[in-house]
Amino acid sequence: MIAILKKGASDQSVSHLVSWIHKKGLDTHISRGKEETIIGLVGDTSRIDPFLLESMDIVDQVKRVSEPFKKANRKFHPEDTSVDCGHGVKIGAGHFQVIAGPCSVEGENLIRIARRVKKAGATMLRGGAFKPRTSPYAYQGMGAEGLDLLREAADELDMPIVTEIMDPRDVQLFLDKNIEVMQIGARNAQNFPLLKEVGKTNTPVLLKRGMSGTLDELLMAAEYIMSEGNENVILCERGIRTFETRTRNTFDLNAVPVLHHLSHLPVVADPSHATGYTRYVEPMALAATAAGADGLEIEVHDNPSKAWSDGAQALTPDQFDDTMRRIRAIREVICQETVQE
Amino acid sequence: MIAILKKGASDQSVSHLVSWIHKKGLDTHISRGKEETIIGLVGDTSRIDPFLLESMDIVDQVKRVSEPFKKANRKFHPEDTSVDCGHGVKIGAGHFQVIAGPCSVEGENLIRIARRVKKAGATMLRGGAFKPRTSPYAYQGMGAEGLDLLREAADELDMPIVTEIMDPRDVQLFLDKNIEVMQIGARNAQNFPLLKEVGKTNTPVLLKRGMSGTLDELLMAAEYIMSEGNENVILCERGIRTFETRTRNTFDLNAVPVLHHLSHLPVVADPSHATGYTRYVEPMALAATAAGADGLEIEVHDNPSKAWSDGAQALTPDQFDDTMRRIRAIREVICQETVQE
Amino acid sequence: MIAILKKGASDQSVSHLVSWIHKKGLDTHISRGKEETIIGLVGDTSRIDPFLLESMDIVDQVKRVSEPFKKANRKFHPEDTSVDCGHGVKIGAGHFQVIAGPCSVEGENLIRIARRVKKAGATMLRGGAFKPRTSPYAYQGMGAEGLDLLREAADELDMPIVTEIMDPRDVQLFLDKNIEVMQIGARNAQNFPLLKEVGKTNTPVLLKRGMSGTLDELLMAAEYIMSEGNENVILCERGIRTFETRTRNTFDLNAVPVLHHLSHLPVVADPSHATGYTRYVEPMALAATAAGADGLEIEVHDNPSKAWSDGAQALTPDQFDDTMRRIRAIREVICQETVQE
Amino acid sequence: MIAILKKGASDQSVSHLVSWIHKKGLDTHISRGKEETIIGLVGDTSRIDPFLLESMDIVDQVKRVSEPFKKANRKFHPEDTSVDCGHGVKIGAGHFQVIAGPCSVEGENLIRIARRVKKAGATMLRGGAFKPRTSPYAYQGMGAEGLDLLREAADELDMPIVTEIMDPRDVQLFLDKNIEVMQIGARNAQNFPLLKEVGKTNTPVLLKRGMSGTLDELLMAAEYIMSEGNENVILCERGIRTFETRTRNTFDLNAVPVLHHLSHLPVVADPSHATGYTRYVEPMALAATAAGADGLEIEVHDNPSKAWSDGAQALTPDQFDDTMRRIRAIREVICQETVQE
Repeated sequence: MIAILKKGASDQSVSHLVSWIHKKGLDTHISRGKEETIIGLVGDTSRIDPFLLESMDIVDQVKRVSEPFKKANRKFHPEDTSVDCGHGVKIGAGHFQVIAGPCSVEGENLIRIARRVKKAGATMLRGGAFKPRTSPYAYQGMGAEGLDLLREAADELDMPIVTEIMDPRDVQLFLDKNIEVMQIGARNAQNFPLLKEVGKTNTPVLLKRGMSGTLDELLMAAEYIMSEGNENVILCERGIRTFETRTRNTFDLNAVPVLHHLSHLPVVADPSHATGYTRYVEPMALAATAAGADGLEIEVHDNPSKAWSDGAQALTPDQFDDTMRRIRAIREVICQETVQE
Repeated sequence: MIAILKKGASDQSVSHLVSWIHKKGLDTHISRGKEETIIGLVGDTSRIDPFLLESMDIVDQVKRVSEPFKKANRKFHPEDTSVDCGHGVKIGAGHFQVIAGPCSVEGENLIRIARRVKKAGATMLRGGAFKPRTSPYAYQGMGAEGLDLLREAADELDMPIVTEIMDPRDVQLFLDKNIEVMQIGARNAQNFPLLKEVGKTNTPVLLKRGMSGTLDELLMAAEYIMSEGNENVILCERGIRTFETRTRNTFDLNAVPVLHHLSHLPVVADPSHATGYTRYVEPMALAATAAGADGLEIEVHDNPSKAWSDGAQALTPDQFDDTMRRIRAIREVICQETVQE
Repeated sequence: MIAILKKGASDQSVSHLVSWIHKKGLDTHISRGKEETIIGLVGDTSRIDPFLLESMDIVDQVKRVSEPFKKANRKFHPEDTSVDCGHGVKIGAGHFQVIAGPCSVEGENLIRIARRVKKAGATMLRGGAFKPRTSPYAYQGMGAEGLDLLREAADELDMPIVTEIMDPRDVQLFLDKNIEVMQIGARNAQNFPLLKEVGKTNTPVLLKRGMSGTLDELLMAAEYIMSEGNENVILCERGIRTFETRTRNTFDLNAVPVLHHLSHLPVVADPSHATGYTRYVEPMALAATAAGADGLEIEVHDNPSKAWSDGAQALTPDQFDDTMRRIRAIREVICQETVQE
Repeated sequence: MIAILKKGASDQSVSHLVSWIHKKGLDTHISRGKEETIIGLVGDTSRIDPFLLESMDIVDQVKRVSEPFKKANRKFHPEDTSVDCGHGVKIGAGHFQVIAGPCSVEGENLIRIARRVKKAGATMLRGGAFKPRTSPYAYQGMGAEGLDLLREAADELDMPIVTEIMDPRDVQLFLDKNIEVMQIGARNAQNFPLLKEVGKTNTPVLLKRGMSGTLDELLMAAEYIMSEGNENVILCERGIRTFETRTRNTFDLNAVPVLHHLSHLPVVADPSHATGYTRYVEPMALAATAAGADGLEIEVHDNPSKAWSDGAQALTPDQFDDTMRRIRAIREVICQETVQE
């Protein structure tokens, strides 16, 4: 962290500030130029609130130099991390996976859909048992019973499950049902009690970016989980909120290479939520693959017009077959090219 | 809800769609024009996902007509609601209140600050015992002990407390401590398990708008609380996230008259978080008052450079004295003028 | 400007970078710490592209220290500027003005509206002769003939005119018609040929913030005008584009105190465009006044349902009478209070 | 357009509104339900301001049904359009092109860069002679002399030129120099005098989306050009402005399939401006190709650290060689797959 002082800051006030910083347990590195005096803060700068520092009388501006995320930071972990999701499925560090299934677990159709997505090449099964819905009057999910249906389908097909957890009180239930990957949704991207609670387990976490979450905030949310001991975090870009209304969200695919640059964690993209319309899912799934994502999460439903939620963005199993063929072809190009270098 | 069909939709497919809508328990109202066929959906349209309807083959567009919020909706409750926060303090329907205190409860300075804000005219005491912080390494609050300090100060001064709750597991603790107003912060604006849990109590809830929350989403979050039985909801505009970086957030004061137009609930504004800098707090507190807010929430600290969080945006007690005088003068203009009409 | 170098930057590569900076005509100020090496760039840093510097191999990050705006910068011009708009009307530095009139000049009703707004207390007359419209099929304004109607009305009432210019080829026409204040609209906030062209005149310019313009960009646009020699610039906040759709724009009233902090130029606010709905204009006009704006721009029409553009946000003359009374009362509070300090 | 009336609108007031609509030259289609009365407006609804209609006493809401763009609309032109840029280069309708070259024309290095990009497979040459720069103190481009250098290089290599025009007064100059494609930049996305002026020529126009421009506004800007007679419009996604600061802009690749859905015009993507950093250009170029873009615009410079503008986002010629190989491989997958269906 760097503090740029106002012109004319007296020696006394500078010493005063420096000793305040020292009391916070940091070292300083001062350079007084003709035009401006700069204080470099060395050490664990997470102990200092930059807004507060900037509010001080003699301080003109404060600039962050080092990222506040540590465990998620590629600088300290240069190698890509792969997360082991069980059933022989790893993601990241060269392992590419497609997570597919219905938005919500609805009943017996789950196993039918699951068989189709597995056959098409998906390696992980998604489905929501607990659903965050904008309206309290909308369908809220099957709850624990939905987890049982997922468990049954996943066991038959030998696939890991990815399913959303919304409440810290449900962690034990998810553990009891041996859920392989707990998903944290966009609305809970800064639900710190929930992040801490899943951080106390060893279960891999698929962590979605908040609707207005910066990439730094996504990495800080990962840091919350990792700082509790659980380093099995998979990051997920699922679209952010902007002024554009022709799609449900704005798919920020820049996030894929940027997160790979900043962090060693695997990065997954969700073209279903990022677009909101079936007709845009395939092109954006291909785009995400070409951008270098380590995986995709795609909604599939065998009767979208009957789906209990988000039917508008689901692919049918037949559409998913086609899309998977193209994803594989794009992925092949990306891998070959990487090898050739 | 209105569905506009594509040109050339066959009679058969229209009947098919209409019977699908009827199965959802809604009535329809069809008008076939030369150019387009429009189906009006009458009844509880919250049972229909508009995205899904729009994804159907013969549907071109879907338009929402009625707001999905009911209990928070002024259409069904034309009169302003006032929320009784205890200690004789009501907010809304002509009652204007200022909530003030430190960002975080830090210890013995709380009572000193509380006495000053009370003397200056604040009627409710704020202070965070549980703090949502972007970094897991930042100060996380005093927890239950902080609630005790708040209780003590508030009892001495006969003021209701406003303090943030982040975890549904803490509701009982807040009830045990007789916290008068539970605050739900921006990061939990769509934490539905938390909203439901506070909805099961009778304790007034100060509900902050999410960083990227639309006003409709804020009202739907209020609806979550109200649909569980707790109608004591106070809405709060605290700034939204935009591209502008000169302030911590963008203070959307349009929200004040818009929320008053859409809802009967009281509307409070928080100029401290909405600006992030002490020097902008007073002008924006005055602006919020002039816009017709039913109350303000303002951070005050007697030694901002020592504050454990958000010191950069706190007023000193002396600054708060001045600001309160001006707030009162503006409020007088607003009230007089309203009466004169 | 400060460049923070990557760890392990060799002495040779640092010297290479330093000499590159020197060639650009800047001095450097180097401090090598254990953890990081920082180069301060001293001089006219507008010659350096910070993105380019950051792209260099040994550079980790670049931080801007000084604002790139000079003539608009309060640091170099501590005193408030007032702009003389003719007819005895000054704005800024304690002079508060209300600009009112119809969105578009439509014909004979202009003089009727103008008389009413003058009587109510407006001191400057607005009206669009050249209209920027999203659709090429929408009404595009009366053009030169509209300027004549404005001239006639303004002369009768001894008021300065504020009217929009969109095309650099029209500057001579505006000079010929003695237009007192040329308005640059949000869509032309970075139309640099237009900014330069009006910068070559002495006519005051009311410069609106772009829909996605940062406050720094607004000040840089002012700088374009001022660097050509015309220092009579009035800044205008008129709402920015965000995700919120309940209002036409999001009124960023934080801009008022922030611009006053950063710049010496007068700051006007436009509650008509910033809200888009008549019912929200008054509360937001009062809020802008309380926030310390030096003036307001308000649309008034005597028959809004017949207006050729933006009728939805116009006040009627009767509504404007009421609003002006309240604006004056709020303004009185702001002025008294300032004096009392 | 549909107007939903308030409950309790009297028959008289409805007739009044209907006759007002008829006077505007539109037909109406009324359906009175128990709950609500809906008026459908049939005809050229661009004559009606929806905000105005919504402001009327008896109107509750107004909903747009038909898109306001006509000539750019796929509904009226179902087949893809290809734009002929001269030198045998067509774009759109199956023709994919890469536009490459330096950000700014700087001098003799242009021809060197041009030869390299041509050899690597680029088919169109870009380079800015007139540069829109945020600061008036930054390099503003070589002007007419730059056009000459472009002409010379393009003629040697038999490539069409793409170069930015900012001022309607420069159109004749661009015609004199036989510039094949005039680029309209993001800052001029709603500079209507400029759009109209290029619309009076037959020269293809590469039209960039505004920083806060919706896709509908981009299509309306195309409509401005087309309504003047010039139908040779190429749309370009170059990133939009959001809260994310890790990249220069947020690359909205959803725009590619959405624009293809809404319009018949070719769609190009610019990964250089959309990311702002060399290291993200390749993955996002591949992503844009996979999303189905009809072309890419990429900045290439043989000595980025010496570039006069935007060096930070330029590829070197060697990097561009690699990127082009991968783009071709991705493009092959996209084309094969399309054919296979």
